[in-house]
Amino acid sequence: MSKKLTTRAEDYSKWYNELVVKADLAENSGVRGCMVIKPYGYAIWEKMQAQLDKMFKETGHSNAYFPLFVPKSMFEAEEKNAEGFAKECAVVTHYRLKNDEENKGKLIVDPNAKLEEELVVRPTSEAIIWSTYKGWVQSYRDLPLLINQWANVVRWEMRTRLFLRTAEFLWQEGHTAHATRQEAIEESEQMMHVYADFVENFMAIPVVKGLKTESERFAGAEETYCIEALMQDGKALQAGTSHFLGQNFAKAFDVKFANKEGKQEFVWGTSWGVSTRLMGALVMTHSDDNGLVLPPNLAPIQVVIVPIHRTDEQLDAISAQVKELMVDLRKVGVSVKYDNRDTQKPGFKFAEWELKGVPVRLAIGPNDLENGTYEVARRDTLTKEVVSKDGIVAYLQDLLSKIQADLYQRAFDFRDTHITEVNSWDEFVDVLENKTGFISAHWDGTPETEEKIKEMTKATIRCIPLDRVEEAGVCVLTGKPSTGRVLFAKAY
Amino acid sequence: MSKKLTTRAEDYSKWYNELVVKADLAENSGVRGCMVIKPYGYAIWEKMQAQLDKMFKETGHSNAYFPLFVPKSMFEAEEKNAEGFAKECAVVTHYRLKNDEENKGKLIVDPNAKLEEELVVRPTSEAIIWSTYKGWVQSYRDLPLLINQWANVVRWEMRTRLFLRTAEFLWQEGHTAHATRQEAIEESEQMMHVYADFVENFMAIPVVKGLKTESERFAGAEETYCIEALMQDGKALQAGTSHFLGQNFAKAFDVKFANKEGKQEFVWGTSWGVSTRLMGALVMTHSDDNGLVLPPNLAPIQVVIVPIHRTDEQLDAISAQVKELMVDLRKVGVSVKYDNRDTQKPGFKFAEWELKGVPVRLAIGPNDLENGTYEVARRDTLTKEVVSKDGIVAYLQDLLSKIQADLYQRAFDFRDTHITEVNSWDEFVDVLENKTGFISAHWDGTPETEEKIKEMTKATIRCIPLDRVEEAGVCVLTGKPSTGRVLFAKAY
Repeated sequence: MSKKLTTRAEDYSKWYNELVVKADLAENSGVRGCMVIKPYGYAIWEKMQAQLDKMFKETGHSNAYFPLFVPKSMFEAEEKNAEGFAKECAVVTHYRLKNDEENKGKLIVDPNAKLEEELVVRPTSEAIIWSTYKGWVQSYRDLPLLINQWANVVRWEMRTRLFLRTAEFLWQEGHTAHATRQEAIEESEQMMHVYADFVENFMAIPVVKGLKTESERFAGAEETYCIEALMQDGKALQAGTSHFLGQNFAKAFDVKFANKEGKQEFVWGTSWGVSTRLMGALVMTHSDDNGLVLPPNLAPIQVVIVPIHRTDEQLDAISAQVKELMVDLRKVGVSVKYDNRDTQKPGFKFAEWELKGVPVRLAIGPNDLENGTYEVARRDTLTKEVVSKDGIVAYLQDLLSKIQADLYQRAFDFRDTHITEVNSWDEFVDVLENKTGFISAHWDGTPETEEKIKEMTKATIRCIPLDRVEEAGVCVLTGKPSTGRVLFAKAY
Repeated sequence: MSKKLTTRAEDYSKWYNELVVKADLAENSGVRGCMVIKPYGYAIWEKMQAQLDKMFKETGHSNAYFPLFVPKSMFEAEEKNAEGFAKECAVVTHYRLKNDEENKGKLIVDPNAKLEEELVVRPTSEAIIWSTYKGWVQSYRDLPLLINQWANVVRWEMRTRLFLRTAEFLWQEGHTAHATRQEAIEESEQMMHVYADFVENFMAIPVVKGLKTESERFAGAEETYCIEALMQDGKALQAGTSHFLGQNFAKAFDVKFANKEGKQEFVWGTSWGVSTRLMGALVMTHSDDNGLVLPPNLAPIQVVIVPIHRTDEQLDAISAQVKELMVDLRKVGVSVKYDNRDTQKPGFKFAEWELKGVPVRLAIGPNDLENGTYEVARRDTLTKEVVSKDGIVAYLQDLLSKIQADLYQRAFDFRDTHITEVNSWDEFVDVLENKTGFISAHWDGTPETEEKIKEMTKATIRCIPLDRVEEAGVCVLTGKPSTGRVLFAKAY
């Protein structure tokens, strides 16, 4: 609270870094690349988890838990996956420390406690899970397996940023096994839709659903479905992925089943995940120069009430009325906090709850008490209104719904005006440099062109939109023929 | 389902190991000492988590998340804690794998990717958390910090058993910081009571609350409070611990605050945890030779309904009635499953749900349909009753409450008859060998005697009960004076 936030116009990246720390979402830890998720940030993550978990269960999935460690020989079994993650694996080589005889009070790794086989700290769990599924699947009756895991994973990133890219992060990873190719494809599509539903209706972030190109695909997948969001600075952020794994992992781990005719077949697989990265998307979609703006569906505190008083008698009268209101609000499921700290002035409290993104602030002073009113302030629009205390509960419920819808609409409009169709390389470069956002352009379908564009501009193909229309055109870079547009953008 | 369980009388340990796997709770993984928690086992753990989390929040705690890794220098800062855990630490030394040029398709640890400082995989998080708290605490206004974390931890155990002792396990760890010694002691006592409340009222397991002796204390604690349970084989199991840390970690990590007078003081700390080990206690307290017995408060499925029919018409009529009942049961919060699989006979289903410990089974056949009845079977007593379908919902609600209470009472009676007061060494050895259970005996208060008894009998002091009465006596081994009894037992 000590110093004003850097504004987005000044330095968007700095604004983000400062905001995440000042709003008590997370901070860097004493461990390289690993973050501490602070209670306020974790409370938002818990709300996200609870909603996603409900949606996974409604679509038939159960939770389970698989080991943190993957023996190296197991890790390398599916070659593409192993190759994709080998460069960023934390590796456990020893299982004991001992006293350093040369430095009293210091510990060193005990050379006598070297593991026979090194253990990889899971960067993702396909290997350990498919090696387990081998024991769970014999017949078509054992399928499908519809399992999800909430876990921590580790990818040794060289440049890290809170939530967006950290060495350790929290996520969920679904891993399913099916009897047919078609069923597995349907599962991966279903989970992409579940993610889109969650991100749009709870996070209030519009997304484009699409397919990744071959070079952007998950290592070991035959197809990667994704949802792509657009941040306020015009950069894209991949908000969730769902992979159709074909029979790749089943073959690598020899997972077969007897079909109805008794014939042995390899199982078909999917995996899908979202992570604490979504917290970064939440911040970068809605927040402003005053701090966080949280959608009511995910705000740990939806309504904060600040008393304004000069005397203790005034405070007592205010508190008595507020306590009744809080009971009524909680009855209808609104989470509310009464900030009656006597150590801070109202102005300080207003700024603090603004910084923390509480959707609605109520203030009540002696005049309000007399007039039977509250001052109601919206965090998203920074507007105020005086509202009668009669019917205030229904008013606040409506207002919270309206804020949720308005946040989505605002983000949607921004995204909508930041998808630009371009038909020449000059236009491509111009939009990328000046307007930013998604660029809808023709591409000749080759990884070489994709790579060249990336090298020249840092823009990547975010996805081939699922709803794209067939359209004859020519590649924006090579002029070769194309049958439809893809979405390019610079990305987080 | 293929083979009968080993009975408890035959081999209690084998019975446990078989049951955990056959009832689909957990299994060993391809990673040494690490388990896979299967969906059915995880569903029980989720219920335990949900209830504990609620109780933590009701007592003012918030969740947060701290890094998996602890740099070696940070780990060793609190000497006793470091020494206590050094012998069982998994250590990350490298952050990359690379292709093995001599073995195509194989990966090796990249020697060029050695970490400057090794990272310990957290065996417990005091070090990383107190190093963070240093940045969070300046003044008495920042206190108390009341934080909990749900996480995985790793302790490299040489001999492991599913749930009871695994290299990786899931747990929660509370870490609180306070301005005064008294407040920290009250917090550690409060959390011991919260644990006891949970274990007794949800797991239906009676516990003894007590203090650990110095040699059994958590490494780095000034006092360890514990709850101790008794398993059916007469061995004790530590079900939860709560530690008063004094200022040990505050001093090791230099965590000070300015008190109201502006004077700098070290902060006082506590930590407390329960783990997936509780799953083992649950199995070993209630289950029998037919399989699991789950207390209704933690059973993922409280009521299972099995149709018995010869014709499709009969099944249709049964299903129509059952569907209505299910709606009514779910309305009042009873979780119910209708097992209408056509691939299995009723007898197979009965045995399967018995194995899985579902508290109540309803069977309904054509006669029941005609008579307006259900056959209701209790898992805990293996008794059956025919009950009218009128009022069945209330009947089942009552029955579930009664089963919960009866399970607790049965375990309590067993525990009660297995606390034996002994006054001589011969009696001590006799009870330990023949009757088993807790032994209430005088002890001279020295670690030497405690150690000697452990060496001679494998029995340890489980706790100094909080409710013990002052009583002059003589140590059961040395004959030296004592002022009160302590509880000995062999333990898991």
